Order: sequence, then structure tokens, then C-alpha cells
Amino acid sequence: MAQGLRAAIDFLLYEWLQAQTLATRERFADHSRETFDAVLDTCERIAREKYAPFNRLVDTEEPRFDGERVILPAATHEAWKAYADSGMLSAAQDYAIGGMQLPYTVEAAGNAFFAAASVSIGAGMLTVGNANLLMAHGTDAQRRAFALHEFAGRFSGTMCLSEPQAGSSLSDIATRAVPDGDDYEADPLGPRYRLRGNKMWISAGEHELTENIVHLVLAKIPGPDGRLPPGVKGISLFIVPKKLVDAEGRLTGERNDVALAGLNHKCGWRGTTNTLLNFGEGRYPVRAPGLDGRGAGAIGYRVGEPGQGLRYMFHMMNEARIGVGMAATMLGMAGYLASLDYARNRPQGRPIGPAGKDPAQPPVRIIEHADVKRMLLAQKAYCEGALALELYCARLVDEQHTGDAAAADEARLLLEVLTPIAKSWPSEWCLEANSLAIQVHGGYGYTRDFPVEQYWRDNRLNMIHEGTHGIQALDLLGRKVLMDEGRGMQLLGARMAATVGRARGVPALAAHADALHGAWDAVRAATQAAWADGDPVPALANAVPYLQAFGHTVLAWIWLDVALAAAGREDAANRGRLQACRYFFHYELPKTAAWLQVVRERDLTCAEMPEDAF
Amino acid sequence: MAQGLRAAIDFLLYEWLQAQTLATRERFADHSRETFDAVLDTCERIAREKYAPFNRLVDTEEPRFDGERVILPAATHEAWKAYADSGMLSAAQDYAIGGMQLPYTVEAAGNAFFAAASVSIGAGMLTVGNANLLMAHGTDAQRRAFALHEFAGRFSGTMCLSEPQAGSSLSDIATRAVPDGDDYEADPLGPRYRLRGNKMWISAGEHELTENIVHLVLAKIPGPDGRLPPGVKGISLFIVPKKLVDAEGRLTGERNDVALAGLNHKCGWRGTTNTLLNFGEGRYPVRAPGLDGRGAGAIGYRVGEPGQGLRYMFHMMNEARIGVGMAATMLGMAGYLASLDYARNRPQGRPIGPAGKDPAQPPVRIIEHADVKRMLLAQKAYCEGALALELYCARLVDEQHTGDAAAADEARLLLEVLTPIAKSWPSEWCLEANSLAIQVHGGYGYTRDFPVEQYWRDNRLNMIHEGTHGIQALDLLGRKVLMDEGRGMQLLGARMAATVGRARGVPALAAHADALHGAWDAVRAATQAAWADGDPVPALANAVPYLQAFGHTVLAWIWLDVALAAAGREDAANRGRLQACRYFFHYELPKTAAWLQVVRERDLTCAEMPEDAF
Repeated sequence: MAQGLRAAIDFLLYEWLQAQTLATRERFADHSRETFDAVLDTCERIAREKYAPFNRLVDTEEPRFDGERVILPAATHEAWKAYADSGMLSAAQDYAIGGMQLPYTVEAAGNAFFAAASVSIGAGMLTVGNANLLMAHGTDAQRRAFALHEFAGRFSGTMCLSEPQAGSSLSDIATRAVPDGDDYEADPLGPRYRLRGNKMWISAGEHELTENIVHLVLAKIPGPDGRLPPGVKGISLFIVPKKLVDAEGRLTGERNDVALAGLNHKCGWRGTTNTLLNFGEGRYPVRAPGLDGRGAGAIGYRVGEPGQGLRYMFHMMNEARIGVGMAATMLGMAGYLASLDYARNRPQGRPIGPAGKDPAQPPVRIIEHADVKRMLLAQKAYCEGALALELYCARLVDEQHTGDAAAADEARLLLEVLTPIAKSWPSEWCLEANSLAIQVHGGYGYTRDFPVEQYWRDNRLNMIHEGTHGIQALDLLGRKVLMDEGRGMQLLGARMAATVGRARGVPALAAHADALHGAWDAVRAATQAAWADGDPVPALANAVPYLQAFGHTVLAWIWLDVALAAAGREDAANRGRLQACRYFFHYELPKTAAWLQVVRERDLTCAEMPEDAF
Repeated sequence: MAQGLRAAIDFLLYEWLQAQTLATRERFADHSRETFDAVLDTCERIAREKYAPFNRLVDTEEPRFDGERVILPAATHEAWKAYADSGMLSAAQDYAIGGMQLPYTVEAAGNAFFAAASVSIGAGMLTVGNANLLMAHGTDAQRRAFALHEFAGRFSGTMCLSEPQAGSSLSDIATRAVPDGDDYEADPLGPRYRLRGNKMWISAGEHELTENIVHLVLAKIPGPDGRLPPGVKGISLFIVPKKLVDAEGRLTGERNDVALAGLNHKCGWRGTTNTLLNFGEGRYPVRAPGLDGRGAGAIGYRVGEPGQGLRYMFHMMNEARIGVGMAATMLGMAGYLASLDYARNRPQGRPIGPAGKDPAQPPVRIIEHADVKRMLLAQKAYCEGALALELYCARLVDEQHTGDAAAADEARLLLEVLTPIAKSWPSEWCLEANSLAIQVHGGYGYTRDFPVEQYWRDNRLNMIHEGTHGIQALDLLGRKVLMDEGRGMQLLGARMAATVGRARGVPALAAHADALHGAWDAVRAATQAAWADGDPVPALANAVPYLQAFGHTVLAWIWLDVALAAAGREDAANRGRLQACRYFFHYELPKTAAWLQVVRERDLTCAEMPEDAF
């Protein structure tokens, strides 16, 4: 399987995105295609040896709590150790702190192998995101005591946003953080608070994989009247370690008051512990030196300014959203490659038409049936298209960090517009790919003897976590296409126009270019129609169909651009890319008309449905 | 939950289909709406008491084999007993053999409650289908010895078609049946054969729920040269009981040579044992009186004529396909009603627009959000629409059995065309409904603490068993729309035209009527374009998109017809039906354009994809 994935990644990185040219940037000057390849080789090997063989094991041996500790399979411990030892946790960091100064594009490509091999055995993405946030917004001391140990693999990280009563609605969180004593601002690790509250859906919230767990927790600081400030503007961010540490990150030997309240038992993605955590309920009362015991609660160190917590957290969430998109994509790829292998080897049935009339002839392999080819080509179009989109976004991250000011700003704006698509589109369509992978296998695909049903179950999470489909849709139509007076959308349109212009010069792609031109016009027209009078209620009533149409149009553009890199080459792989592009334009892009119709007409059929009429 | 389902069924049965008028038929003369209601009451009660409480249990306590017996939870035994005691196994049979002479429409409606409560705890549908086949094609002795005991619940039944090397491709089955001795035709239970072979995916293939299991087995009788005849014309049908019986169906005490070779472990639908069976491998050698032991193998009694096995089996498969459609529909309904309940009670978030700007206001229930309403209304449109279609097909079965000759023939032809839709459409779209039900629940829906993830997993089977999506599509476009020179399709078109004509007279529905008229024209045009030159290869290359477009058009028609029964009534439930109809026409029917385009253009993008280009 890894072979097909590597070939797809190599083409997209080097033939399409020209990632090797990143080595001309000062930050990446020591790098070259050779060093990039060495990283990919390492990731591929560790994923093959330490992840893939245990993917079913972590599905059947779920994390369990023995009252003291959360027990995970030994394979999960070994996978974590191998990942940490590989250096991937700090791959993108400065040499000065032990990093490789690797472009994010290559880091993301390397991590793809792990997601394809076993999406839930590892939780490295959260740890890196957590540490990156502290590098951006923490103090020197916080970086040294927490982030550096996360990059080294000694500590792992979580993000604690949701609460049982407030899932997507962060303005309603009720976790309370009060200053811990009069000298609360004097702690070397940052202003010290006591936190009390419950956090739900916390991935990797409790385990023994690492010496410590660094929780990044959203909470509210009560005002002088003792009440929590309403809305998202009252949210602050805190570092709440599972075990207390000194200024160098050494364990003091004292446990912080963070207690596992329960493990969530999920449909899939079972290798990663998912928890409900109680902060400051008194299970592990903290009597740290110098504290008078007044303020019961878990010790937390504020990051940055009060009231800015959500903004800081978004730093982590945008990376997390690209990570979710990549995970969804890799689950799709894993299913695609498994079903391709099955279809190449399974004999069954005969060709349609005269060639299949003779039952005395042996059956053909199912890859020879048109409908099986359709299901395989759809998967290829969904998954390799999504992979291209994720790597494109990763390349924009590098541009944002290392390009000149104008290029960096353009990359930033494009990322704002593309992130909801990068997160939502693979979550929906690579899940559909997994369903097709099951279908190619027939009854076998529905059994646990083959891997595809697990990919499908694992992938169903991706439309939910890190912002649901509905949240992504509101973000896109309600914020991203409007921000900076629509400049992000204009920039995206300009990039599409450039692709269209080049494709018009290639006979095999000219019709696709016209189709993309028309589809983007329709998206723009629907955007304007939705916002015709500025009223958000009818504008946003069909935000999800808008997200779907926008996403399919973006993917058509990505495919056309990839096809430009493949055009004129005669080898089988490039012929396959051109065919996948053609599939997307013939079978998928026409779907956007139905989605846009309700947006354009501001259809209120759903919004006006009376509750008692359901 | 059962309440919402009952209301939907009552409306469709009595207000829309006028099922009470069936009591004017001679066969149903003793019946009335009161007796129908009594049956529905009983089914609803047993499903609520004996099925629903154990739906999660049968998911977690899968069938297991202790080397001797297959162990099922006690709840499964109790559910079977309650179902058998209810008389539903013989509900449609003649009074003379202990039946109720109930219309199939009402039987199907009654069975819907069981599927909604726990789709996999019961396997009554297969038993009834098996016995019905024997009533139609068996001898008196076979009916007496097998079918009557199935209707009484003493025996259960299976259908044994697939083999490990031949899933959907029945022409390649290799199970061999040889005459058992020179006097093989003299057995009172029918011509006696010895069978050897393996059968895969056999639901309820081994268990202790009943005294005996009646396997209906497709096998081939070798020719004089000892070779099996190629193709489907060489297939015959045999009764192979797990335990041998005398002419009255009493157990002789001897076991037949049918051995469990393995249990299949599935993604869902875990309450029903699914097996690989070995016939005649010698595990239970049979030395029945009068046999000389020459012919090792499992004893089987031929049903009807040699070479007609597949035709007889189709008798059972058509019922099974409607049953699968109903099961898929009920899983969808169960998810819809669960997510509706959740959405009505879960507070989270605030309205879009000025009303939601004040974070000090308490959150609203999520059913007040437009996107949640969209997800609920889509589920309602999919599931209540599918339910209407299944009941419509069931009503056609009654017409076929009890209508006058012309009406019966029309019903038969309509059923031929509609059966692929009745099987495939709910399998695809009520699965999508289950995914939306998860989405409405957010993270909670992805946990096993809520029922919706199980509905989704259970439902994924329905696109596979009893003929995959691809098989249904070939059946529809390759056979059903062509048969009798297209008369089935013409009859369906005439029924749509009648609905369109009536709807044009209702202002609220007139636009939908025009849309349906146009959509059906497009389906007909695509059918003709696909078959323009009679070459089946390009005609059938896009059979699945055709099936999808045809299905959506049929459902639009069903919804418009249901809306005619709801129009002009002011109560909430009928307003909801009209809104669901409007949803279907605004959001769903426009999707058909994209599917039909590739059919009309005989697009070969998929069919021509070279294998090495994947």
C-alpha cells in the first residue's frame, strides 16, 4: 500500500508543487530533495513497521481505565517511542532547539504515512500543535518548561475546548479560573490560577505514554462580581499540566488536580484515548509550596493576555484542521489502495456483452468490470485530489512563514478561505471513498477480516471533531468569503483563472477549463445572491450546500492544476491522473448546480420547518 | 420513538394507500381497519418490549461458537419466541394452514416495527421467504414437512446462494448435487441427492433458536460426463435440513451433514449469525435407513425441476429485496427519530443574526438552528419517502395476488421495475440519513452511548446483501426497463403522469408537478440514449448513476403523491409532509441532472481507465 501512496506524494511534492525549490529559502538552505526524501523514507518505514501492523489491534483493544491508570496496548507505546525518536515532533522547529527546520509541506507529507498506517494509534499531531502554540504565544519559561519537552517526546499535549454542556458553542464554557493567591502573577511559569470545570472529548487526555501531559485549557476568569464574562471575549487560555513541574520542566513529584472522569467509547478511532476530564474537583488536591490552600482547583498558568484565549487557540486549531483533513484523506487513500489490491486479485463474474456470454470461460478479475472501475476511479479522484489540496495548503503555510511580505499575506488570506475546505471536503468525500472501498469488496468488505470497514468507521469522526461540517460552513460563508472585503475569495479566483488560462492551451484540458470557469462564476454569483441584502439568516440558511459546492469547485481546480503537471506524459501513472481529472469534471463538478440552487434562491424550506411538523 | 413511526405508518396505510379497502377483497373479507390495527398494535408492543431493549446487547454480544453450538444471547431466544407466538410468521397464509390471511401490505407494515427496534435480533423474514418459496414451488410433502413448521416457528429457514469463490456471480457456483442411489426419486420428501460444497454469507445458518434449520441451497447436478453444467441454467434448488426429518417434519434423530465452517464477524448487523457452511464434508456422515453409504454428502431434496433453481429462488429474492429496503428504511427512521429527540432537548448555541448576539442569553435548543433543521428534514424526506415506497410496493404485491387479471399483471410489471429501487434507494439514502443522525448528535453521536452509530453500521450492509448496488443497477437498466418492450417503464410513467395531473390542480404543488414531469422525461431520454445502438457495454457503463437518478425521480413522484393526500390539511403532521416534499423537490431532485448526464453521453471515462493507471 505504502508504495502507491509514496508515488502519489512524490509526484505532488516534486512534479506539481516543486517543493524542492523551498531549499532556496534561507530557513531551508541546508535542505534538498535528498533530505526531504530521507525524511519521507523514515516516516514510511516507521509507519510500515510500528503503525500498520497494529491498526486492527488498537481497534479491538480499546483503552481501559483500571482505576489508577489508562491501559493502552504495548504497540501504542512502541509506536509513540518510534515516532518521538524519529524527530518528527520537532521536525519544523529551529536547529537551536533541536529541530530540523523542515518545511511544513514535507512534515505534512511525512505525517501522511502515519495517518494511512494507523490513524488512531498516534496522537503526535496534537502534541506538536500544542507546543507550536506555546512557541508562538507562551513566555520563554513556558516554552522551556513545556513546549521543549513536548518536542522531545517526554510530554504530550492536548487541547481542552469543549465541555459537556457546550460542544461547538465555546462562548458557553463554564470552566472557571481564579487567581491563585495575591502573588499569583509572580510564578516563574506564568500567572498562576486555580481552575475548576469539566472538559469533554479530550483526545489523549489521560495515558502513560509520556511522563506528563500538557493540557491547554480554555477557561473564563470571573469578574469582580464573581460572574463569568459572557461570550467568547471572556475566554482565556491556561497551561494545566497533569503533573506539576519546575521551571525546567522537571516533575516536582506532585500531581495536579486533573482527574479522568470517564473514557468515551467510540464507533472508531479507538486507538486514541478520548476522555472527559474534571479539573479541580479535589481528587488530587494540590498543596504546592507557597500556596495557602485557599483556592482549591487545578493549577493553571495563563498564556498571554486574559480574554485572548480563543485567538491563541485558533493558532492551534487551524493546524489541527489541516491535520484532520489530511487524516481523512489518508483513511481514504488506505481504503482506495486496499480495494484496488482486492479488485486486481478477486476473480468474479464475466464481461458485459458477447465476450461474457460463455459461462464455460473462467471469470475475470473484478477490476475489469466498469462499475468496479467507477468505484476505484471515484476513490482515486477523491483521495488523490484531497491529498493535493492538503499539500497545497501546507505549501501555503510555508509561504506564509518564509515568503516575502506580499506573498506571505496572500498565502495567509488564501489559507483563511481554504482551511474550511481542507478540513471538511476530505471528511465528507474520503468517507464516501471508504464506503466505496467496502462496496468493491462486497460482503468481505463488511467483515472485520478486511481493513476497509475500520477505515470507514474511523473516518466518520472527521466531519465532527475540530469544528463540525456545519461550523466549517458558517466559517466559510459567514466569515471567510467576506473578510478583507472578499480579498481571499478574489485571490482564490485569480489562482483559478491562472489555471484556467494555462489549461485552455492544452487540448485535452480545454473543456475542463471552461467548466471550471463556469463553476467558479456560479459560486461567486451564489455568494452574492446569498448576501444580497446583508441579512445573515437567509444568507446562511444553506451554508452546508454552499460549502459542498465551494469544495467541489476547489477540487476541480486542484485537479485541473495537477492535470497540467501530468499532461503530455505518456506513462500509466500520469494517464491515470488525467483520467481522474476527467472523472472529476464529468461526474463530480456537475453536482454543484443542485447545491448552489438553494443557496442562490435563499431557500428557506428547512429554516421555516416548524418544530412540531417533524 | 415507536409513536412517530406509528403515526407515519398510519397515515401512509390509511390516508394515502387506502389499505382499509383491501377488506373488500374476498381473501381479506374478514379483515377491517380494526383487525389491521390490532396486528400493528401487537407488533409495536412486542418490538418495544422484546426487541428494542436488546438492540445494543446483540451488537456487543456477538454470536460465538463453542465447538458444538452457536451461542446467542437469551434475549435473542426470547425475541424469536415472541415473534413466532405473535403469528407473524404465517400472517399472510391461508386460514386452512393456521394463517391470518393478512394483506402483505399490513404484514410489511407490522414487520417495520421489528426492524426499527432491532434489525438484527430477528431473522423472521428469511424464514417466511423460505417457506413461501416452498408453498409456491414445493410438493405437498415438502410443504408439510418443512414450510408448515417454519410458519409455526419450530423450524427456521435460510437461503444458500453465494459461495466463497462466487459472490454475486451465481453461474460459477460449484456445489455439486448427485442422485442418492438408484431409487433417489422415490423419497417421499422429493428426489433425494447428496450435496457437497461451501456456502458463504448464510444468515442464520447455525443457531439453536429453533429445532431445525431448513437450508434452501442452490447447487448443480453433474452431467453424464461428471462435469457441472456451466451458467445459471445448470442451477437446481434443494432443501437441505440441518437435521433429518420424516414425512411429517418430525426429527429422525439424525443430523444431516451440514457443518459450520466459520462465523463471519461484521461491522454491524451483529445480532444475526452469519456463517460459512460446509455441505457434505463428512463432519456429520449420514447413514440414513435404506442408503448404502455410497454417496457421501449432505442429504438434499430437489425442489421442482432440475435447472430451474434460480427462477424459484428469485421468488424468494424479490420478497427479500423489498424486505432489505424496508430494513434500511427502518434503520433510517430509528436514527431520524432519535436525532429529532436529541435536537429537541439539547441546548447549544444561539440564533444567527441580531437575536443571537447577546451571549448573556441562554443557549437555544439545537432544533432551532437552520442547519440542524436541514439535517432533520433531509432524514424525514429520505426515510418517510422510502417508507412510502416500500408500502407502495407491498400494496402492489397484494394487487398482484388478489387483483383482477389486468390489475395483477400491471402490478407484476410495476414491481419488476420498482424492486431494484425499493432495494437500493433506502440502502443508500437511509444510510445517509443515519450519517446525518450522527451529525445532529455531534460527538455524542459517534459514541456507543447513543444508538445512532449502530444504526449507521447496521445499515451499511444493505447496499451489499441480496444483490449489491451494482447488481440492482444492471437489473434495472439492463433488464427491467427493457422487458415486455418497455411496458413496465411505460406503466410507471403513466402513474407518474396521473400524479402530475392531479398535482397541477393544487397551487402549492404545481411547480413540483412540472419538475417531476421534466425529471421523468430526462430519465426516459437518458434510457433511450444509453441504448441508442443496442450495445450493452456503453449502455451499462454508468448503470449506477442511472439507478441513482431513476431512484430519486421515483421518490419525487412518491413524495408528490403523498403530498396530494396531505394537501389542504392544516395540522402540523401534514404541514410537515408538505415541507418534506418541498425539500425533496428543491434539494434532492435537482441532483438527477448530474447523474443522468454521464448516462446520456455514454461516458466511458471509468470503463476505459487502464488497470495500470490506477
